[in-house]
Amino acid sequence: FSSTINIFFFFFCHKLKMAKNTNIRISLPAVCFVWQIAMIILFGVFIRYDEESDTHWIEHRRKKNISTNLENDFYYRYPSFQDVHVMIFVGFGFLMTFLKRYSFGGVGFNFLIAAFGIQWALLMQGWFHHLDEHDWKIKIGVENLINADFCVASCLIAYGACLGKVSPVQLMVLTLFGVTLFAVEEYIILELLHAKDAGGSMVIHTFGAYYGLTISWVLYRPLLSQSKHLQGSVYHSDVFAMIGTLFLWMYWPSFNSAIADHGDGQHRAVINTYLALASSVLTTFAISSISQNNGKLDMVHIQNATLAGGVAMGTASEFMITPYGSLIVGFCSGIVSTFGYLFLTPFMEKTLKIQDTCGIHNLHAMPGVIGGIVGAITAASASESVYGQEGLINTFDFKDAVANRTVNIQGGYQAAALFVAIAFGLVGGALVGGILKLPIWGDPADVNCFDDDVYWEVPEEDENFLSRHPNMNHATSIPDV
Amino acid sequence: FSSTINIFFFFFCHKLKMAKNTNIRISLPAVCFVWQIAMIILFGVFIRYDEESDTHWIEHRRKKNISTNLENDFYYRYPSFQDVHVMIFVGFGFLMTFLKRYSFGGVGFNFLIAAFGIQWALLMQGWFHHLDEHDWKIKIGVENLINADFCVASCLIAYGACLGKVSPVQLMVLTLFGVTLFAVEEYIILELLHAKDAGGSMVIHTFGAYYGLTISWVLYRPLLSQSKHLQGSVYHSDVFAMIGTLFLWMYWPSFNSAIADHGDGQHRAVINTYLALASSVLTTFAISSISQNNGKLDMVHIQNATLAGGVAMGTASEFMITPYGSLIVGFCSGIVSTFGYLFLTPFMEKTLKIQDTCGIHNLHAMPGVIGGIVGAITAASASESVYGQEGLINTFDFKDAVANRTVNIQGGYQAAALFVAIAFGLVGGALVGGILKLPIWGDPADVNCFDDDVYWEVPEEDENFLSRHPNMNHATSIPDV
Amino acid sequence: FSSTINIFFFFFCHKLKMAKNTNIRISLPAVCFVWQIAMIILFGVFIRYDEESDTHWIEHRRKKNISTNLENDFYYRYPSFQDVHVMIFVGFGFLMTFLKRYSFGGVGFNFLIAAFGIQWALLMQGWFHHLDEHDWKIKIGVENLINADFCVASCLIAYGACLGKVSPVQLMVLTLFGVTLFAVEEYIILELLHAKDAGGSMVIHTFGAYYGLTISWVLYRPLLSQSKHLQGSVYHSDVFAMIGTLFLWMYWPSFNSAIADHGDGQHRAVINTYLALASSVLTTFAISSISQNNGKLDMVHIQNATLAGGVAMGTASEFMITPYGSLIVGFCSGIVSTFGYLFLTPFMEKTLKIQDTCGIHNLHAMPGVIGGIVGAITAASASESVYGQEGLINTFDFKDAVANRTVNIQGGYQAAALFVAIAFGLVGGALVGGILKLPIWGDPADVNCFDDDVYWEVPEEDENFLSRHPNMNHATSIPDV
Repeated sequence: FSSTINIFFFFFCHKLKMAKNTNIRISLPAVCFVWQIAMIILFGVFIRYDEESDTHWIEHRRKKNISTNLENDFYYRYPSFQDVHVMIFVGFGFLMTFLKRYSFGGVGFNFLIAAFGIQWALLMQGWFHHLDEHDWKIKIGVENLINADFCVASCLIAYGACLGKVSPVQLMVLTLFGVTLFAVEEYIILELLHAKDAGGSMVIHTFGAYYGLTISWVLYRPLLSQSKHLQGSVYHSDVFAMIGTLFLWMYWPSFNSAIADHGDGQHRAVINTYLALASSVLTTFAISSISQNNGKLDMVHIQNATLAGGVAMGTASEFMITPYGSLIVGFCSGIVSTFGYLFLTPFMEKTLKIQDTCGIHNLHAMPGVIGGIVGAITAASASESVYGQEGLINTFDFKDAVANRTVNIQGGYQAAALFVAIAFGLVGGALVGGILKLPIWGDPADVNCFDDDVYWEVPEEDENFLSRHPNMNHATSIPDV
Repeated sequence: FSSTINIFFFFFCHKLKMAKNTNIRISLPAVCFVWQIAMIILFGVFIRYDEESDTHWIEHRRKKNISTNLENDFYYRYPSFQDVHVMIFVGFGFLMTFLKRYSFGGVGFNFLIAAFGIQWALLMQGWFHHLDEHDWKIKIGVENLINADFCVASCLIAYGACLGKVSPVQLMVLTLFGVTLFAVEEYIILELLHAKDAGGSMVIHTFGAYYGLTISWVLYRPLLSQSKHLQGSVYHSDVFAMIGTLFLWMYWPSFNSAIADHGDGQHRAVINTYLALASSVLTTFAISSISQNNGKLDMVHIQNATLAGGVAMGTASEFMITPYGSLIVGFCSGIVSTFGYLFLTPFMEKTLKIQDTCGIHNLHAMPGVIGGIVGAITAASASESVYGQEGLINTFDFKDAVANRTVNIQGGYQAAALFVAIAFGLVGGALVGGILKLPIWGDPADVNCFDDDVYWEVPEEDENFLSRHPNMNHATSIPDV
Repeated sequence: FSSTINIFFFFFCHKLKMAKNTNIRISLPAVCFVWQIAMIILFGVFIRYDEESDTHWIEHRRKKNISTNLENDFYYRYPSFQDVHVMIFVGFGFLMTFLKRYSFGGVGFNFLIAAFGIQWALLMQGWFHHLDEHDWKIKIGVENLINADFCVASCLIAYGACLGKVSPVQLMVLTLFGVTLFAVEEYIILELLHAKDAGGSMVIHTFGAYYGLTISWVLYRPLLSQSKHLQGSVYHSDVFAMIGTLFLWMYWPSFNSAIADHGDGQHRAVINTYLALASSVLTTFAISSISQNNGKLDMVHIQNATLAGGVAMGTASEFMITPYGSLIVGFCSGIVSTFGYLFLTPFMEKTLKIQDTCGIHNLHAMPGVIGGIVGAITAASASESVYGQEGLINTFDFKDAVANRTVNIQGGYQAAALFVAIAFGLVGGALVGGILKLPIWGDPADVNCFDDDVYWEVPEEDENFLSRHPNMNHATSIPDV
């Protein structure tokens, strides 16, 4: 009987699958080749080494009277850069391996779009922030590499909402526009509003999350329950996802401090982030346990909500928020994030028609907004008595055009920046979602979502492995007879 | 027939399980919330940024005539800190995923107690070592973060002995008292005895191991064999554990050098640890192979005993032990540790009634004691001809109160420190074990040990996965008929 | 019927297995012990701390007028060293876990031979490059540790060609001779020819790959298809391999910059490698997709060819190759490498009788040769107008004996270096292959290749696990009846 069902099911699926063409044999190679060639041409026209990575560094040193090679920014930032790099590729990548049959897609497409995105980000961010006025070239160094990784993070967050439901070609388009929007939004927030956001609570997390959620809303799939059997995890896929969680968690202090001010700025950002993260672990375990019969813990919460403290500390990590202030931020964001997984995600799927595979609304959107608010309040309540006169100027860069700005006004601009980030996410997501809805991108049918078999050569699970392998089947050879 | 056994077994287990109440829905959230709130209050009262992470750093620099931001301790220690952080969360966490059905508990509870422990350690270690006499505040910087990670390591070692047999609430209690005992013991060893122990062979490993073993002895379970079928590994859980092993192994040089003296101290500690670790890999493989028919290797040995060289080099890593001295230390500790797994662990379980899940006696206790002894001998045999006059003073900090101490006397104090560490472990473990024996902590019945299903929502293993998934079951669809 | 086949198969295998004695109970421990003791003796005679890791550093500082501990090379190179260390043990180790039943051997033997190789490399490279003329000692510091890791990388590459087909004793022999040959080859290329090769496209990758391929050719197994059922991956082993891929990919900028010149040299090497790697990801995905029906991606390509850009950038990473030049190098090497997996590997196995388990010809040999050629061209086309006068001298070390060398001549020497690397690989591989062909090393029979069961205690796969574990088999208990 069960095989009759099997056969029926097979034909049913087969037919549904035919309805959508997931063949990406032309489109994916075309996108990869053409865009990579475009990158080469644009890099040829625009990108050069900056004075610290150019062989003229030795002359630059002499001219600027720099006493040692160690003053090359490379030695201030490279260890943090490598940690951020691990977060982007292993952290985000493995966090998305938790589905039972979408681990290849989770880590593999994350790899693809991040590798494209960092190139495009070097250009986009370069045009907006680093264009040399004399020769119209973008001069890059290690700080640009960090910023490119940051920029891509917002697109990877957006991927989290769409995980399993889009084709790699759609993801490339999502990244192309995501990086573009990011660069404009970042320019408005950091340069025009002169807001501070070293760890990107607003610029990266809030923007990225609303961008992804809006796309997911536009691409709503009413029949997604057809692939419900693939939406869960298996035991070992949950352990793989913990690799992603832990590398994100451990290196988040580097993320929030990577482009902070040299000296006390980086040092303080690390301490604040370390504490906020520790605090959100405890509240996540607490809420996860209290929400279940017998107090059993849910791996989805542990994998995600433990990171909320890092997101929420993104804006204020540089500020004198105090160690206990950091603990409080982590405390609250861990609670909010776990409650999100318990109540908001189901609500959003049913009522708002937003299908959020990884729960990015709980991990990035809400903690990101918290981070933006915390940043605005902390900035508005900064004082010379706490920061010192020079400290206040250095921390908020009250120089040049904004030399006369007060901390209250700064708080207002921080709040404005949060709205800019949300607006860019919503509007940008709606536009890009519309583009991605076109029936040309090779996205899977509802019944084939969350299934690596659509875009990957999946190894045949070898059920007969043990029987073909006599040395191992001491226990099983007899029952087979 | 097999299903009859199944049903019988089911009721049998069910009944046994009823005997113990493993519901932690009240206790775990209560502990997490109350203790986290206590942390926030205590941090509010006691913890502040130190002068290198405060915005007044720029004034401090000017006052102390520090020429560059690079002299901020952050740039000396942050890369090592991040490596240590990875060891604590991924290293210890994944090393404990080797059991076939306790990977969630291994990596998850490790995460929970480490996140709590580092906060409590910042307070405890701060009160003993860093309390500012003027304002009674603890001023923290990156070195405090490293020391907090170190302190927690001792509790994670103790967890290794109890893995699979205790509830997360018990682990929180174990950590609360473990960190407290650690701070006192560390104060006696480093401040009162003025012993040196940069990598913590005594302070961390010996103490942590005897603390955990004594707890395990107090909590002895005579019927633990009821869960024997869960005490082994499966193929992929052994590969997961190798992630833990390798990150511990690779970053151990950072562990032993993280708080060593700037300059040659850190540099030498790295070289010594690198060599000791390499050497213990070879002797571990040798003993593992020679102990089995056909010379087959045992993954348990490779996962653990290869690390013994790092433990044993913890005290002497800063000293001029010479490169070949490091190789000898690794050589011996690899042998001792592997023999421990072969003979001592079964002996301890049968005769001494100590059930040591991860074999921490072999990986931490014995190599830790070796490390303490090596440290004492190396210190006692130090000489001005080898170290140079200033080098000797710098290495052993023969300043102020101990300015007139000779190397022989230092050797004696090093030996005394070892006994302090053992004594704290034994006495502390007995006390805390007594507390954990109370029947209120929600620990599992013997038959439910090593089973994630007690404390976690474990994903249903989807046996029908392939049949519901027609694209993948070419090979299996026919036999199903 | 299937059980009859099973039984037949069992005896057939049993007999074949008897034909080869894979008992390594004497040979492996003997090799490990004797060689480790030899290391201790040789280290005792030859190896000492250098002036930066010795307690006399403080006097050295004063004598050389070094203002800060930060000028200790440790602070320039230690973060890069740790990244390289992760590549050697986790990167190479986990990349070789992709086989369904050889993950223990992949990561475990990688661990063993790397731990031996780094010790032997410190000696061999020390004798050739760092022997102090006054006291005939080798003085080691962090740069020696990096170089030892580099040296071992070439042997791990060679292991890739032999994966699953050799015994650990053979691998130790392969490493002993591989490190020896490497040290000579490196001496010729870097010291005699004065070629530049910071990331080792020629010295490490080209040499290592041809060394391994020639050994594999000598050890050709005509009946290897007998273990064909073990030559593939399973779903989770492919995810494990992605851990290796990503850590190699992320840390490759550190690999190519670890021993580059302080300051702009390291900085530029990072940028160039970062870009080349990103570019090769896109072309790998493109070719992988275009080569299959429906454009499905192949995990083998993603796991390997994405790294080709890092290999190909090994020689020129220090040079002013320009950012878009780096993108072009990555673009081409990704294509070449993926085509290699598609066409060359099958061709080499059938026609040239070279069985290359991991496809090192595609990942290391061809991109390594590309890297050598790119390096020669970039060097030959260097100019004072681009590099600056001092920059040109610094980058190519046109000092002392080679003070008058022109860039054209340098290009010629670079090309010559490539031939030296290939020649050492081919000749060395033939010699060592001959030694490894002796029937004394305990290598497996053809039918037992790619099977951990030969050299490891493999945990019994517990088919009855679910039935013995009633809490988990809600879904499966009924069908069992």
